Amino acid sequence: MPSLTLTTLDGFPMVKPGDNLARMIADNLTTQGTTLQSGDILVLAQKVVSKAEGRYRDLATIQPSPEATALAVETDKDPRMVQAILDESTEVVRKRKGVLVVRHKRGWVMAQAGIDQSNIEGGDTGRLLLLPEDPDASAAKLRHDLGAILGTAPAVIIADSFGRPFRNGTSGVAIGAAGLSSFIDIRGEKDLFGRDLKVSTVGHADEIAAAASLLMGQAAEGRPVVIVSGLRSSPDVPAEALIRPIEDDLFR
Amino acid sequence: MPSLTLTTLDGFPMVKPGDNLARMIADNLTTQGTTLQSGDILVLAQKVVSKAEGRYRDLATIQPSPEATALAVETDKDPRMVQAILDESTEVVRKRKGVLVVRHKRGWVMAQAGIDQSNIEGGDTGRLLLLPEDPDASAAKLRHDLGAILGTAPAVIIADSFGRPFRNGTSGVAIGAAGLSSFIDIRGEKDLFGRDLKVSTVGHADEIAAAASLLMGQAAEGRPVVIVSGLRSSPDVPAEALIRPIEDDLFR
Repeated sequence: MPSLTLTTLDGFPMVKPGDNLARMIADNLTTQGTTLQSGDILVLAQKVVSKAEGRYRDLATIQPSPEATALAVETDKDPRMVQAILDESTEVVRKRKGVLVVRHKRGWVMAQAGIDQSNIEGGDTGRLLLLPEDPDASAAKLRHDLGAILGTAPAVIIADSFGRPFRNGTSGVAIGAAGLSSFIDIRGEKDLFGRDLKVSTVGHADEIAAAASLLMGQAAEGRPVVIVSGLRSSPDVPAEALIRPIEDDLFR
Repeated sequence: MPSLTLTTLDGFPMVKPGDNLARMIADNLTTQGTTLQSGDILVLAQKVVSKAEGRYRDLATIQPSPEATALAVETDKDPRMVQAILDESTEVVRKRKGVLVVRHKRGWVMAQAGIDQSNIEGGDTGRLLLLPEDPDASAAKLRHDLGAILGTAPAVIIADSFGRPFRNGTSGVAIGAAGLSSFIDIRGEKDLFGRDLKVSTVGHADEIAAAASLLMGQAAEGRPVVIVSGLRSSPDVPAEALIRPIEDDLFR
């Protein structure tokens, strides 16, 4: 029977700016007495990639603009946080008390531009963690570096949790990927009875990120790396392909 | 290391109206020489549940209203299909050529009210398959029936694939569930450093449905049942909890 296995890398150390994630993953695999198999996919929480890349800002150094200050009143947020969000964004998509949904510079429509104050050392004193500068590139580099160390280059996904219109709760999504098809287009394939398929495009890397999120947990568990084994390999399509172009967006 | 395993029930027979899904699943498990473990979650494709419940309509019997006829021109669809969609819906949320997004009677915002012409015997000649009447109730009944046959009642999820605003490709979602927490609210929990969590609510059953979707496939593979093993059990919250109330919806 076809099957899929997801396993966490336990005891993964806290990540600091400049850390070599590929080396840390390889060391952890050795400690666990395991290794990657051909076709394995490595899913990393965005947080550890951002930390390794040193994507920090300090609230105390941020001078809010008049626009940020006004928006802070509307959304009931710290004006410096709002400024940090605007600095990462191209457009405010929705706003109300407690909610600021923007289009991130890289195209994702998301709350807070993905800026995080939780699970950061110093988070209480105003340290912010931004998303990686270019998660597809981060994933490709990590895939390359792991290949160099391990001899096998796994596919890599960088995952975040996004809230969603119309549905309660967040779900894991892929913001970066390398070595697999983030987006699968099966338009033209036929169903069991030779008809065109109802579902013809699949957010493949998002489904993998959602699956990995089941094991990562959100609370103080610290399981930022999940290995996914058993999926057929697929051609390389970066996670950027998961972003719906503005002109196709019916929900602006 | 914590791990999660997903396995398909292979060779699952075609489902016809009136079929007893619980019995078919139990028989398939026996044929495969396997059994369910305590804590297992059974994910079923919506299609097989709809078929067992006989949720068919015939295009030829549908008389489109003037509203449906006008909307059919706008969306470039068959007016009888548009009528079938409107019959299942409370509101048209977005429309344009080729696209008709509605609020289904049960609250889901989705394309086509989930009505399917693919993978249906007779689909070419105008047979439509609607969503189950009450998927949470269907899941609860299946869970009960499986418990009666097997001695262990697994959690059950009824999964569909939804398109999403802002992101390309569909992702698996839960439209029905029983025996697990579809929606997890961890507001109030603290992160590694004692701060409030960034992510505080999780669409848990949606993440499981997305994971199962990786194995089900969309094309002529016919793998409508997936067993998920390894998740901690959680209190019963039906999938209805995943629907964002209209008054909280910023994207109407």
